[in-house]
Amino acid sequence: MPTILSDHEIAAGLTPIRAVAWIREALLDAHHGRLHTPPRVSTDLGEGRLVFTAGALEGEWFGYRSYDSFGKDVGEQVIVVHEWATGAVQTIAISNELGPRRVGAIGAAAADVLANPNAITLGLIGTGVQALTQLLSVAAVRELTDVAVYSRDPVRRKAFCARVNAHGVQAHPVESARAAVVDRELVLLATNSPVPVIDPAWIADGAFVATLGPKQRGRAEFGPELIARADLAVTDSVAQTHAYDPPYILLDSPEHERLVSLGAILAGERLGRTDPNQVVVFCSVGLAGTEAYLLNRLVRDGVQ
Amino acid sequence: MPTILSDHEIAAGLTPIRAVAWIREALLDAHHGRLHTPPRVSTDLGEGRLVFTAGALEGEWFGYRSYDSFGKDVGEQVIVVHEWATGAVQTIAISNELGPRRVGAIGAAAADVLANPNAITLGLIGTGVQALTQLLSVAAVRELTDVAVYSRDPVRRKAFCARVNAHGVQAHPVESARAAVVDRELVLLATNSPVPVIDPAWIADGAFVATLGPKQRGRAEFGPELIARADLAVTDSVAQTHAYDPPYILLDSPEHERLVSLGAILAGERLGRTDPNQVVVFCSVGLAGTEAYLLNRLVRDGVQ
Repeated sequence: MPTILSDHEIAAGLTPIRAVAWIREALLDAHHGRLHTPPRVSTDLGEGRLVFTAGALEGEWFGYRSYDSFGKDVGEQVIVVHEWATGAVQTIAISNELGPRRVGAIGAAAADVLANPNAITLGLIGTGVQALTQLLSVAAVRELTDVAVYSRDPVRRKAFCARVNAHGVQAHPVESARAAVVDRELVLLATNSPVPVIDPAWIADGAFVATLGPKQRGRAEFGPELIARADLAVTDSVAQTHAYDPPYILLDSPEHERLVSLGAILAGERLGRTDPNQVVVFCSVGLAGTEAYLLNRLVRDGVQ
Repeated sequence: MPTILSDHEIAAGLTPIRAVAWIREALLDAHHGRLHTPPRVSTDLGEGRLVFTAGALEGEWFGYRSYDSFGKDVGEQVIVVHEWATGAVQTIAISNELGPRRVGAIGAAAADVLANPNAITLGLIGTGVQALTQLLSVAAVRELTDVAVYSRDPVRRKAFCARVNAHGVQAHPVESARAAVVDRELVLLATNSPVPVIDPAWIADGAFVATLGPKQRGRAEFGPELIARADLAVTDSVAQTHAYDPPYILLDSPEHERLVSLGAILAGERLGRTDPNQVVVFCSVGLAGTEAYLLNRLVRDGVQ
């Protein structure tokens, strides 16, 4: 029988430091063509859909994650890893922890290579699950000493900061998105907002900005003007930006042409940040196949 | 944690009699629109593909089966059932037994309603896994006393008959496809053949014929001339015949227009066999969602 993991083992074993290191390897494997990351597929089941994001690391494994869009609550996600050679199931995780930790690790891998090395101040817009894991992931690559948090609900942002502090990262709520962004060296957008949540003019020179929320035409937490503010714009998968329906917010815009692959930067084939005063924006699309990638590495290196 | 089942529990619990009864219910649920059975989706992973066949029974569950096309060996299949209301994972089966038993049960449910009630002679073309489960499934709905088996390899067909006999069904090998088909009341085509395996002129009046092997243009174990021989042609999913690529062998032919839904016949909304001398052909496409349907019923009614 294969290894079956639950949220408990994922939370204990997939620490932000491990997740960032493994995602960095995944980005390089994808860049070099070893990791196959096709666009997700989904199937219509009447009141909801099942969505599958698959991946394969040549010679090692193939696998997928499934999640649903039934109802208001999020159902349990399933991640399956098969051995490449035999097709036998190696590991199954029933876990809603793996997804956010993976997205957080992608953003943190980007921050690690694209933010200024001495960056210590951070502004966060959003107080959901993904905002928390994104912040804690970035805290694994930078010594954050000043974290300002904004969301529309003052009660939620206060409670959120208490949760962050419990994780050993000092955070405080602020009264406006502007107050969270102005003068910060790192800015994270992690909302469900259908409209842009910040004015790009607020962004300080030298800042690293990451966006991981809605990114489709008609529903996006940022617009082309954010990219216009940037000296460098980066994404984890240029290919996936072509696979959205409704289309990716930047598609067919001049800003889309500027997107550089994070894997190419990690591989040294494209330039990343070249000046401490540059504004660098990272537009996360959630490189496919990375859920199974992380699960395989977790089992290979040992669940703690 | 959900229930995790392996081939052992599936083989013990999903008996042909239970599987046929449950598939009959599934066909009716699909006909009445309660069971959603969208076409399968697949994703390209370089050297192979992952394929997902999903289903949802409104108010009860949603789920899927995954299988791969990597390498020559067949990898392990995974079947997942979620509770409708919460999205929680109820059951996971890691099983290559469930798929063939499901296809066998679909064919047997068709035989049960479409073959003459007193049919006892059967000709089988094919000696693979699917041929065995199809034969044993039909043996659950008819008292077979004379089973003739043909495949090209005499050693294989002899060994196959020994396996069938071990299951309590008397079978003997024959030297030609023609010898297997002529005068038989039931005829089963269960091959991987890319070309038609029988001459429809061999089929006796009154016979029930089922085909479950390849069915796409350029690779099909039967052709339109088999349907031309039939007084009635039936399939388990007309919708799925439109979703093949390459196209379904009958698509855009006059014979395609004649296909009647098995669910409609079971529901009494379309006529089935009306005369003992009619030839009835059943063209199985493997109604989607039925893997999860069977798994849900198995767990609900008790793994034996």
